[in-house]
Amino acid sequence: MVASLRLPSLTYLFTSPSATLGRCSKAVFRRGHHPRPPLAAGFSAQSAAAVPPATEERASKQKSRGEDRAVTPRSLDFNAWYLDVIEHAELADYGPVRGTMVIRPYGYAIWEAIQDFLNVKFKETGHSNMYFPQLIPYSFIEKEASHVEGFSPELAVVTIGGGKELEEKLVVRPTSETIVNHMFTQWIHSHRDLPLMINQWANVTRWEMRTKPFIRTLEFLWQEGHTAHATPEEAEKEALQMIDVYTKFAYEQAAIPVIAGRKSKVERFAGADRTYTIEAMMGDRKALQAGTSHNLGQNFSRAFGTQFTDEIGNRQHVWQTSWAISTRFVGGIIMTHGDDTGLMLPPRLAPIQVIVIPIYKKADEKSGVLSAASSVKEALQSAGVKVKLDDSDQRTPGWKFNFWEMKGVPLRIEIGPRDVSSGSVVVSRRDIPGKEGKVFGISMEPAVLEAYVKDKLDEIQSSLLQRAKLFRDRNIVDVSSYDELKQAISQGKWARGPWSASDQEELRVKEETGATIRCFPFDQPEDIKTCLMTGNPASEVAVFAKSY
Amino acid sequence: MVASLRLPSLTYLFTSPSATLGRCSKAVFRRGHHPRPPLAAGFSAQSAAAVPPATEERASKQKSRGEDRAVTPRSLDFNAWYLDVIEHAELADYGPVRGTMVIRPYGYAIWEAIQDFLNVKFKETGHSNMYFPQLIPYSFIEKEASHVEGFSPELAVVTIGGGKELEEKLVVRPTSETIVNHMFTQWIHSHRDLPLMINQWANVTRWEMRTKPFIRTLEFLWQEGHTAHATPEEAEKEALQMIDVYTKFAYEQAAIPVIAGRKSKVERFAGADRTYTIEAMMGDRKALQAGTSHNLGQNFSRAFGTQFTDEIGNRQHVWQTSWAISTRFVGGIIMTHGDDTGLMLPPRLAPIQVIVIPIYKKADEKSGVLSAASSVKEALQSAGVKVKLDDSDQRTPGWKFNFWEMKGVPLRIEIGPRDVSSGSVVVSRRDIPGKEGKVFGISMEPAVLEAYVKDKLDEIQSSLLQRAKLFRDRNIVDVSSYDELKQAISQGKWARGPWSASDQEELRVKEETGATIRCFPFDQPEDIKTCLMTGNPASEVAVFAKSY
Repeated sequence: MVASLRLPSLTYLFTSPSATLGRCSKAVFRRGHHPRPPLAAGFSAQSAAAVPPATEERASKQKSRGEDRAVTPRSLDFNAWYLDVIEHAELADYGPVRGTMVIRPYGYAIWEAIQDFLNVKFKETGHSNMYFPQLIPYSFIEKEASHVEGFSPELAVVTIGGGKELEEKLVVRPTSETIVNHMFTQWIHSHRDLPLMINQWANVTRWEMRTKPFIRTLEFLWQEGHTAHATPEEAEKEALQMIDVYTKFAYEQAAIPVIAGRKSKVERFAGADRTYTIEAMMGDRKALQAGTSHNLGQNFSRAFGTQFTDEIGNRQHVWQTSWAISTRFVGGIIMTHGDDTGLMLPPRLAPIQVIVIPIYKKADEKSGVLSAASSVKEALQSAGVKVKLDDSDQRTPGWKFNFWEMKGVPLRIEIGPRDVSSGSVVVSRRDIPGKEGKVFGISMEPAVLEAYVKDKLDEIQSSLLQRAKLFRDRNIVDVSSYDELKQAISQGKWARGPWSASDQEELRVKEETGATIRCFPFDQPEDIKTCLMTGNPASEVAVFAKSY
Repeated sequence: MVASLRLPSLTYLFTSPSATLGRCSKAVFRRGHHPRPPLAAGFSAQSAAAVPPATEERASKQKSRGEDRAVTPRSLDFNAWYLDVIEHAELADYGPVRGTMVIRPYGYAIWEAIQDFLNVKFKETGHSNMYFPQLIPYSFIEKEASHVEGFSPELAVVTIGGGKELEEKLVVRPTSETIVNHMFTQWIHSHRDLPLMINQWANVTRWEMRTKPFIRTLEFLWQEGHTAHATPEEAEKEALQMIDVYTKFAYEQAAIPVIAGRKSKVERFAGADRTYTIEAMMGDRKALQAGTSHNLGQNFSRAFGTQFTDEIGNRQHVWQTSWAISTRFVGGIIMTHGDDTGLMLPPRLAPIQVIVIPIYKKADEKSGVLSAASSVKEALQSAGVKVKLDDSDQRTPGWKFNFWEMKGVPLRIEIGPRDVSSGSVVVSRRDIPGKEGKVFGISMEPAVLEAYVKDKLDEIQSSLLQRAKLFRDRNIVDVSSYDELKQAISQGKWARGPWSASDQEELRVKEETGATIRCFPFDQPEDIKTCLMTGNPASEVAVFAKSY
């Protein structure tokens, strides 16, 4: 997989004077944040029109633009930094329709790593993959009251098919609960048909007004699990099991120390009885909802008549769950670990874990260095390490260092003529900049090098998690009054405090501070509390934060 | 993967009197073949409306229906047989919108096996996966003249987004050449950016009037490769390389002896200079186009201005290819190998290669038999065989035999009390019915059994291919005149003969016989020919057949 990654545009991105996407496509991305993008004729947020004007505009801008390697510093403008990293690390590009995104090979490879891990977990926990059509009759969406309320404002609707106006409009799926229930009614009859546990990997479409690559796009990729059970206890257990799968994935694979918990009634999924969530703190301290698992109760089964005959012959509605993680998670990885040098990938999800860079000046050094570099690559590859050798002639080692740091590759191995003589290599860590992260004289001996590399990758994986945990914990404030909450939020932090107030009070907090309840964490303090807003008894703390 | 397959509806499909999809959903599928499905109020082929009326109709029909295990004999009604197998083997179901299909876990697992194999091949041949948005501005489709002519009649069009009429209509992708070229113009600048070789796994939507599960559905899953090259020679080489990947896949994995060749001008892809195809002969002797690879020349690069600067500084349009295989291939597997007993899967693509069935009557036999069955399963599993143990209490061994034969599992292992005593098992082949395919006394000793099973799976794989080849060759007639061609076609066979006549003559053959040129095979006879239609010199033979 790694070896076949082709990165054609990098060759021009940083150097070719006639050919750069640089600032221009950055500008294209930023448009997404304006409800009405500042674009030329014929383009408006409502129309989702194509952007040929931008292409022309870009072409002319390109001429006046020289080299531009650096990304905007994270501390200066987090959003600009994010968009720069996506562009320079070649993760994604802007599609022709407003708010759509092209996921480029390197970004897609991260999504594939996420898929590979979760797909196995889903199967281990008893789910089968399958596929439902994406076109859903409009009437289906209207069947579940809160579902239609939640989703109807953001639907893409097909009204013409095969050149003719359709009698019933079709919705491009924003999520599949409705069509899943329509099919479940045909497959579920007896308690022996339960539990029914399926998953699909699919694209979904939601007509978002404020878009941002990976985080919120008109179309995105995800998996959606759907299950039906005979009892509410089983459904609850399943919903909790899946949020636990997500939580472990976030910690162990993505090195993101999410806070797992229950959504408030105000924040939960349109059609769920309970929504569980994992909330991640991004580098700008905003929260990202990174995955959700819903206990749907009987809301959809009642709307669609999804019933089974129980063991004593009674007809009952099934109890259901659904759960999803999407390409948004890639955005979460970027915004958790990235720094001013670019992307920083957790080794377990990195498409390339080790980049090998040969260094030579004289022609007579070349073959020795290249052959050593190639051996090192082969040895690591057969040890199961995802390794790439950058032996291109067109770039200097320094250029390559910067480039692969931008791409967030966890480890770099440098091999020069002196290393060849001494039979050793230099190993640099992406997560520790400069000399501090550099170790000289690691033996080229395959067994030694492999062990060293694997050990370092593990160390980086832990270190990224540890660093993100420290950052998170430094930025969560325990509050016991609304004033304290407001202060914490105004400082850009998360506020955690006892909460038993009303939905109205919750909405007031949102209006006055911009923060919402991200969740009632599963992990609760033990002492008795009084609600930070009302002073009434409260049995739980909630976490408040501004969010994406 | 295999262990987690849940097959809930089987429990009712064959037995539960109150709950059967049986004939009813068969009827639903068959509707797809009528341009105007014979359905109740509000449903017409043009509207693609939902089918709640059918659901009610079905519910009432179910009451009057008893058990119905057998599929329609293949020889009696091939189409009915095909739909029965899809239903009884639980491969797919009919979606709520006319012409859409739900791919059920067992059918999807076959698609996953296809993906797993091809995905590796694509990467080995230098392609990277990525993802393009599915919503395409309508204006894009109109840019390439023959492309719009080919695809505009079958477009699904989004006209409403976020509750508002869109200024520019959006097409739900029927294929991605246009949006790919739009992006390629932004990524390709210099000859150093070439070749650019990518692939995406995606859903596509084509408003087909005559649908059939897997073979032709409004939405289907596929992979589409797209490449750009600096020279026409490279593009041609790539197009040929990919049809070769497909050909080998068909022969070696799917045991389908396709005929690979070049499409006639009349039959090629809308926008291609040359289309290569693999054509498979189904059990009813109709041809199925099972995969295509297109040399697009500069048609799209000229329409979209996809240019690069060559080594001497000139601007040139790139040379392109695209190539695809879809879920249609699953239909090809069913129609190539299936028989009156149901599906018959080639071992290399079978989600379950071996089914283990314990047989006991008395309670005191149970634990010994189950424990032996379980050991056998474990041993095979750790040897890398996809094996499942059907230890359910609810079904008799006879029921299970039929069920797993219907599912096309290549090998069955039976274990009874006497086998336990003798330390041996009985092994039955799906491809050889009855006693002839049954071997007694195979040792349970893991090393012996594993070797035996792997050997048998290989034998079945070869045997399926061999059988399909014989069938194919028996049903291709070499013809040297139009009369002979007409006779062969009227007998349901394929006709192969020298052809150098005009497009008009080709269309006349279609009109008069229903057969089309499936391809000019790569594999050509050596002797000189005269065109079967005109008597003029012809340098190639073409294969004519009726097709799906």
